[in-house]
Amino acid sequence: MDLDAMEAAQLRLDSLTKPPGSLGKLEAIAKQAAGITGESLPDLSRKAVIVMAGDHGVCEEGISAFPAEVTPQMVLNFLGGGAAVNVLARHAGADVVCVDIGVNADLQHPELVSRKIRKGTANIAKGAAMSREEAVAAIRVGYDLVCELAAKGTRVFATGEMGIGNTTPSAAMLVALAGIPLEQAVGRGTGIDDARLRHKRGVIERALQVNAADPADPLDVLAKLGGLEIAGLVGVILGAAANRAVAVIDGFISSAAALVAGRLAPQALPYMMASHMSLEQGHAGMLEAVGLSPMIHMDMRLGEGTGAVLCFHLIDAAGKIMREMATFESAGVSQS
Amino acid sequence: MDLDAMEAAQLRLDSLTKPPGSLGKLEAIAKQAAGITGESLPDLSRKAVIVMAGDHGVCEEGISAFPAEVTPQMVLNFLGGGAAVNVLARHAGADVVCVDIGVNADLQHPELVSRKIRKGTANIAKGAAMSREEAVAAIRVGYDLVCELAAKGTRVFATGEMGIGNTTPSAAMLVALAGIPLEQAVGRGTGIDDARLRHKRGVIERALQVNAADPADPLDVLAKLGGLEIAGLVGVILGAAANRAVAVIDGFISSAAALVAGRLAPQALPYMMASHMSLEQGHAGMLEAVGLSPMIHMDMRLGEGTGAVLCFHLIDAAGKIMREMATFESAGVSQS
Repeated sequence: MDLDAMEAAQLRLDSLTKPPGSLGKLEAIAKQAAGITGESLPDLSRKAVIVMAGDHGVCEEGISAFPAEVTPQMVLNFLGGGAAVNVLARHAGADVVCVDIGVNADLQHPELVSRKIRKGTANIAKGAAMSREEAVAAIRVGYDLVCELAAKGTRVFATGEMGIGNTTPSAAMLVALAGIPLEQAVGRGTGIDDARLRHKRGVIERALQVNAADPADPLDVLAKLGGLEIAGLVGVILGAAANRAVAVIDGFISSAAALVAGRLAPQALPYMMASHMSLEQGHAGMLEAVGLSPMIHMDMRLGEGTGAVLCFHLIDAAGKIMREMATFESAGVSQS
Repeated sequence: MDLDAMEAAQLRLDSLTKPPGSLGKLEAIAKQAAGITGESLPDLSRKAVIVMAGDHGVCEEGISAFPAEVTPQMVLNFLGGGAAVNVLARHAGADVVCVDIGVNADLQHPELVSRKIRKGTANIAKGAAMSREEAVAAIRVGYDLVCELAAKGTRVFATGEMGIGNTTPSAAMLVALAGIPLEQAVGRGTGIDDARLRHKRGVIERALQVNAADPADPLDVLAKLGGLEIAGLVGVILGAAANRAVAVIDGFISSAAALVAGRLAPQALPYMMASHMSLEQGHAGMLEAVGLSPMIHMDMRLGEGTGAVLCFHLIDAAGKIMREMATFESAGVSQS
């Protein structure tokens, strides 16, 4: 983080016609963006949401309201431009980059970024989701992709994901890494009923016991309890930090990736911004564990990067405040 | 509210490629907008923020961090396009309509809407802010203005205000109307220190005793403890409801107007949307008293309509979700 650029941004903020600090997080965003980019007035117009798609072996335990076949179906929907994240990304003037990092189907499309590590994870209720090497390879996919996009000018990256069943590994990681009780960490995902929620908690309990992941080793937790798309997003976040770009974290699953990224590399934390507070039960605890405070409270629980993309507008607003507001001096307004 | 249009909107929402309800408040906004306008896919592109400006006699008690002369100075800043609300309204593609409804200065500008009822309120610590007739006249100003703008096609109205000292009358109204304890209702406004906060609470306590406003008579509370810009915003909200338009409520002061509007005409409540949760201490209790839940949590405390205008983007997003998302059928995605 560039402290000089942050100080310059703060000086400018305090010269604008408003009580100091009264624009709250808009001011914090402007200052953070300055620190990240090293520019007091950075151009953050090029933005992308990276939607990592992967399947989950644990779906065979019946933990989701939707069948696993929805993952490849939704990938095609992303590529066709009809999913919620496509609509909201167009609204925000952002690119959607869809990555097959672990879908359990053969997918081909000219705009699909094919980087499949394997066809879905193994069932975490019975053993490790993937090997440590596969987890590293998946992180590398996200990291390299961000490096490519950053080289072409993208400076804001939203994390997005698709993977039926992926609140289950995310909740398992939350329990393992942050020590949050199972009852608090595990929620309804896309909308399961009470009976299936109890069943889901039991499955996660088994996954935690069977895998006995080492909480001091975030890569171990990611490989044993995580998902390919989650590992890919860890790479996206680390890649953003390495490229002095902003990482905007979406909901519960993305925040699991942020939790791992922050544990692997605490110096990446200042490059993250939380976007929305999900309705998924464990999200508040997950964000607290990462140390992030969300901007919007829209009761969303869709994933895909939808909440993160909705917040692009607020990041743009912070930039415009810095560029366009009058100063006390220029407007002839008295200070307190 | 048009129940048929709301049902049509709900049917459409449930056909889109996402778990039912998973877009949370975006879905609620789409449905509410349908009920308000009577159209399942309303065009809400014409938007305006109405910034009512008025002064407060209670400033002579020294309750604000800023001198009262800042009110007219900021009005000129709004008209010059340099205030935060101007920047954010341009960002949202919305008009800024600035109204002098009670500034304690002679203001002239080709774009100023001059509807002065009187040059500021009287000091509420010593007696009524204004007469009942003046309060009604100020409500009328807001109401008529919205009728004019609605006739020209504006369908979304954000409430904005400028008036040094106006968290004081707003907090007084909150205590009087909602029975919230003084300590909870009264906050730091533009940023006063502990000593002045204690003083401000004492001033409000005196205002409540001196005026003995009738909590069952919201117009009595508004006239005795309120402000001209607050009364004007009551009219804006009632005018929006009468014109089947959306009223987007800004922060603490605007929410005081919403509280009065909802008490005067409960049938106007479904036409309101809360925008942001202000950092001003009493705002959470105020919104709860009105029955509204805010969309964004940006720790803002500026007023002017800035928080409301920031949420225009989310209202647009809800409309685009309704128009542009693929359905389960069109995208060939399996349902739960």
